[in-house]
Amino acid sequence: MTLSLPIPDLIRKKRDGGEHSRAELDHLILGYTRGEVPDYQVAAWLMAVYLRGMTAQETADLTLVMAGSGEEMDLGDLPRTVDKHSTGGVGDKTSLILAPMLAALGLTVAKLSGRGLAHTGGTIDKLESFPGWSPELPEDHFIIQAREVGLALVGQSRDLAPADGKLYALRDVTATVDCLPLIASSIMSKKLASGAHTVILDVKVGAGAFMRTVEDGRALARAMVDIGTRAGRQVRAVLTDMDAPLGRMAGNSLEVLEALDTLRGEGPEDLTELCVALAVEALAAHGEEEATAETRARTTLRDGSALAKFRAFIAAQGGDAAMVDDPTRLDVTPGRADVMAPSSGFVAGVDALAVGRAVLALGGGRERKGEAIDHGVGVELLKKPGEAVTAGEPVLRFYHRDGRGLEAARALLEAGLSVSDVAPAPQPLILDRVN
Amino acid sequence: MTLSLPIPDLIRKKRDGGEHSRAELDHLILGYTRGEVPDYQVAAWLMAVYLRGMTAQETADLTLVMAGSGEEMDLGDLPRTVDKHSTGGVGDKTSLILAPMLAALGLTVAKLSGRGLAHTGGTIDKLESFPGWSPELPEDHFIIQAREVGLALVGQSRDLAPADGKLYALRDVTATVDCLPLIASSIMSKKLASGAHTVILDVKVGAGAFMRTVEDGRALARAMVDIGTRAGRQVRAVLTDMDAPLGRMAGNSLEVLEALDTLRGEGPEDLTELCVALAVEALAAHGEEEATAETRARTTLRDGSALAKFRAFIAAQGGDAAMVDDPTRLDVTPGRADVMAPSSGFVAGVDALAVGRAVLALGGGRERKGEAIDHGVGVELLKKPGEAVTAGEPVLRFYHRDGRGLEAARALLEAGLSVSDVAPAPQPLILDRVN
Repeated sequence: MTLSLPIPDLIRKKRDGGEHSRAELDHLILGYTRGEVPDYQVAAWLMAVYLRGMTAQETADLTLVMAGSGEEMDLGDLPRTVDKHSTGGVGDKTSLILAPMLAALGLTVAKLSGRGLAHTGGTIDKLESFPGWSPELPEDHFIIQAREVGLALVGQSRDLAPADGKLYALRDVTATVDCLPLIASSIMSKKLASGAHTVILDVKVGAGAFMRTVEDGRALARAMVDIGTRAGRQVRAVLTDMDAPLGRMAGNSLEVLEALDTLRGEGPEDLTELCVALAVEALAAHGEEEATAETRARTTLRDGSALAKFRAFIAAQGGDAAMVDDPTRLDVTPGRADVMAPSSGFVAGVDALAVGRAVLALGGGRERKGEAIDHGVGVELLKKPGEAVTAGEPVLRFYHRDGRGLEAARALLEAGLSVSDVAPAPQPLILDRVN
Repeated sequence: MTLSLPIPDLIRKKRDGGEHSRAELDHLILGYTRGEVPDYQVAAWLMAVYLRGMTAQETADLTLVMAGSGEEMDLGDLPRTVDKHSTGGVGDKTSLILAPMLAALGLTVAKLSGRGLAHTGGTIDKLESFPGWSPELPEDHFIIQAREVGLALVGQSRDLAPADGKLYALRDVTATVDCLPLIASSIMSKKLASGAHTVILDVKVGAGAFMRTVEDGRALARAMVDIGTRAGRQVRAVLTDMDAPLGRMAGNSLEVLEALDTLRGEGPEDLTELCVALAVEALAAHGEEEATAETRARTTLRDGSALAKFRAFIAAQGGDAAMVDDPTRLDVTPGRADVMAPSSGFVAGVDALAVGRAVLALGGGRERKGEAIDHGVGVELLKKPGEAVTAGEPVLRFYHRDGRGLEAARALLEAGLSVSDVAPAPQPLILDRVN
């Protein structure tokens, strides 16, 4: 290191409200990643950051340091690369639809994706509902497929932004998770290391999301867009409501079914509108006029071009592409059980977090990394918030495997469902845009 | 534990400005002391404490938790027990004089004392200038001697307030040392565990002290007195100037020589006045009227009663008591070297910290615990701040062993000595009293 500033001096600087230089952050964060700076010093520093904050420049520098702490993807000369990130929701199958839409629109999606953990699902898990489909591709195949199909998606097996993983684990046990610059830099470090020129962010807001209010969501979106801009990338964010689950399905094969419906132009309105809005942002980031972009985006769902990209993508990664056109062959468990409306009226709310936990209880998610999951189980919202119900009418449906976890899932969802006498005011899905 | 609150929740509470209960502090601090709570969680908590502060009740509770984290001295029914603590100065031989004064005044000093580290000296090291004197006494001998002589002083070999030692080491590497409630609780935890009913605090203020300003010193004194009061003890503090060293001598045998002079009523004025002031506080804490207390305190230095107690104390712990009356037998190295006044005028300042570091350089202190020290080396202030000097006249004298460390000591003190044309305004030694 060219910098000899002792770590306690760096902690002291942040403690006293100072602004770190890029060199200081390099020293601290890369030293920590290499195991040279002990976790107790970084823990004290994280708390100082939590309470003193970071400037936009510091946050961008921290992100770049983390992005550079391990391997970085080189997408080479792939044209119009775009990545998408959601801050995590329940029943969020957006990537399954948006990625082929973007490919059909002439952009390149060469994307790393994750598996689900706890109540949040993962795109890789959902795609594994297609027998044979593999998230593992050699790097040269990945690039060739991205160029030829416009869409390639692999698991995060590489050592991408290892500083972020290490810092996140420490934040988790030191009450320093919910800190804006740390959240923003964590997300963006992986996106920067993933190499795409354009990043479209879906910032979820509401009961089922990490950001509970629009103000918090907007601030996070602003911070992430700032980081991207300072790093020379195009970053745009859409704030979307996550009080209730997106679409009607939660669970791996069930979400794939719904995604295929949407790619055929027959999906739920909220899901369709979100995918169109995100596609418009991606096109706008590449200079397209918005009205044109919206028309083009909607067309991909009507003319089968997005579905065709999806089919080619599943086939290219070894999956059974015929299933795309015969989704009844997807493994959906035959076990069924319903939750009935306790009274007549209107569905006032379906707690997205409770839905996510119910899927987990049924076996459709994992508590710990590496656990196997059941692709066939899940929850269907027969009625969405705002829809009328009569007492005793089924509102939610469980897809269970021989009753596993059904009691727990039922308890979660009976508590998470509310019916009111008056129709709730319709809530917009897209709450704001930041770019 | 009866408390099941997870540690991250405790960190979060302090992070958000909350006030801990005694049970919470028990859970956190005792868990840490037992090795059940990892240091990174305590590090984050310490930074939260640093930036959010602690209430007086929290600080007192933390102190009691730390005091109870290991063994606690039981001074039983010893009468009128009194302990004294200095926040650390250079050339501070106060304990050597004050302790026998208090014994002569009918109080009981049953005291644990430390060894020196870095630029601060330790009372144990100074007393070891008497061949044979030992800081190790079995507990029953310690109590018997305290009762019979009125004075017993042993090393901190016991496991007293181990939480403090562990926390201090962590604070040292996480930039959380200079935090008022943590400083106050650290000092007071050891004093409470040491068992004396009355504690007299000498809070040093100035260039050579931990507290640089009177305001900081007063706040620390206030915090420590509050802790003592809440713990049911009598605590009184005196704020004293530590810009220049106390007395004229720094170094182990040299300080003993000066202490013996003072016990004979022939000591430097500043040292004598400080000892009298601290003795007055001790008597006042036991209900004596101040004017009477002052007269009685001064008398112990005039009538030989304090010196007699000192003689008895040295003898009781195995030391060569004859040396008390023939101090020329103390080991003082014959090596001498002087620093001359660079110009005529008045000594404006002698940097106490520089004097402490010079003694360390000469071999009279230790860099790390357990190192042997040379009792015979040190520094004498031939002229104190305010005294007139002519160019080329000796101002400071080194007592060195064959020149060891002399160059470094000279460099330190030539930089730490200032002579000015005008006499500096006389500075009071006693800056304030807090009780």
